[in-house]
Amino acid sequence: MSLYSPSIEKLIESFEKLPSIGHKTAVRLAFYLLNSTEEETNEFVSSIIDAKKNLRYCSKCYNISDTDPCNICSNPRRDNSIICVVEDVKDIIAMERTHEFKGLYHVLHGSISPMNGIGPDDIKIKELLARLQDGVVKEIILATNPRVEGEATAMYLSKLIKPLGIKVTRIARGIPIGGDLEYTDEVTLTQALEGRREV
Amino acid sequence: MSLYSPSIEKLIESFEKLPSIGHKTAVRLAFYLLNSTEEETNEFVSSIIDAKKNLRYCSKCYNISDTDPCNICSNPRRDNSIICVVEDVKDIIAMERTHEFKGLYHVLHGSISPMNGIGPDDIKIKELLARLQDGVVKEIILATNPRVEGEATAMYLSKLIKPLGIKVTRIARGIPIGGDLEYTDEVTLTQALEGRREV
Repeated sequence: MSLYSPSIEKLIESFEKLPSIGHKTAVRLAFYLLNSTEEETNEFVSSIIDAKKNLRYCSKCYNISDTDPCNICSNPRRDNSIICVVEDVKDIIAMERTHEFKGLYHVLHGSISPMNGIGPDDIKIKELLARLQDGVVKEIILATNPRVEGEATAMYLSKLIKPLGIKVTRIARGIPIGGDLEYTDEVTLTQALEGRREV
Repeated sequence: MSLYSPSIEKLIESFEKLPSIGHKTAVRLAFYLLNSTEEETNEFVSSIIDAKKNLRYCSKCYNISDTDPCNICSNPRRDNSIICVVEDVKDIIAMERTHEFKGLYHVLHGSISPMNGIGPDDIKIKELLARLQDGVVKEIILATNPRVEGEATAMYLSKLIKPLGIKVTRIARGIPIGGDLEYTDEVTLTQALEGRREV
């Protein structure tokens, strides 16, 4: 027999399904919600329902957004001659935080990973190629993650896009700011050496 | 300007309000829900709504339960001559996990804490006294937390209940199993010494 009432048990199980939430945190969250007011609970629940209802993928860049096209694609002040290709929606936020990039994005929603059965057709590659047809785009920045899958995807994309006469660049890989040579793995160090620039 | 769409922003804020959830975890949870299926999200939301709708306080012991009286109070195999007094609903679960206690409970929903403006009337003390009127209860175990507020509450309750001719006991305080004398604070050690028993 379970120690909790069925409704609490189910609520705890619901929280446990979420990533990075273990049993103890799930219990704490469940009791927090049970002790919160009707209004607070309704606000929490409706924020989930609203988000699921309102959010869609931008039909141009596949960012997740309340509007279609998204607020980046529809911003006339963004430079539409340059597209930064990322694996995930959250990578856009990371890029936007730098306030350095003024172009548009394209979210692949994954990376090529034969080990996991994900091929080029499973991510938004043909949608990216479609955006390059009108000749407006002059540069593609490949900002996939510097891991095996991200590198393979970048390689694959550069081979497809270069023949179209579009400049293809890859974000620099090297030692992160605040990092320590002593503790940097040899692959990163090799990349940092290869990517050295005159000062 | 926020980097996220309004609906995502609101969802992230909702998660951030929960205890022990920081900004990064809130972002991860929000995107997890956005990427989960309609069915999974509905299940999550309805577990919250159902719990809030179904759960009530047991009118006898103030445990939280789907039924009134709760499954402990309504269990005929429990010994109704002994009541264990705890501060919080979660403390019942902790006690039940021992499988040692076969009596009933009473949840105070807090402890006396003048610092926080919580007096005897703000917790379920008069409800406890009302349960002692019929003479069935022979022993009260005070299992409030061994902190300043819990000790004060236990002291207050014992002064009220002893004159009724009911045996009042307090759970033992001492060194926890697996603990280390060397690292035990002096207050606990003093309590452990005072509570020593012949072997």
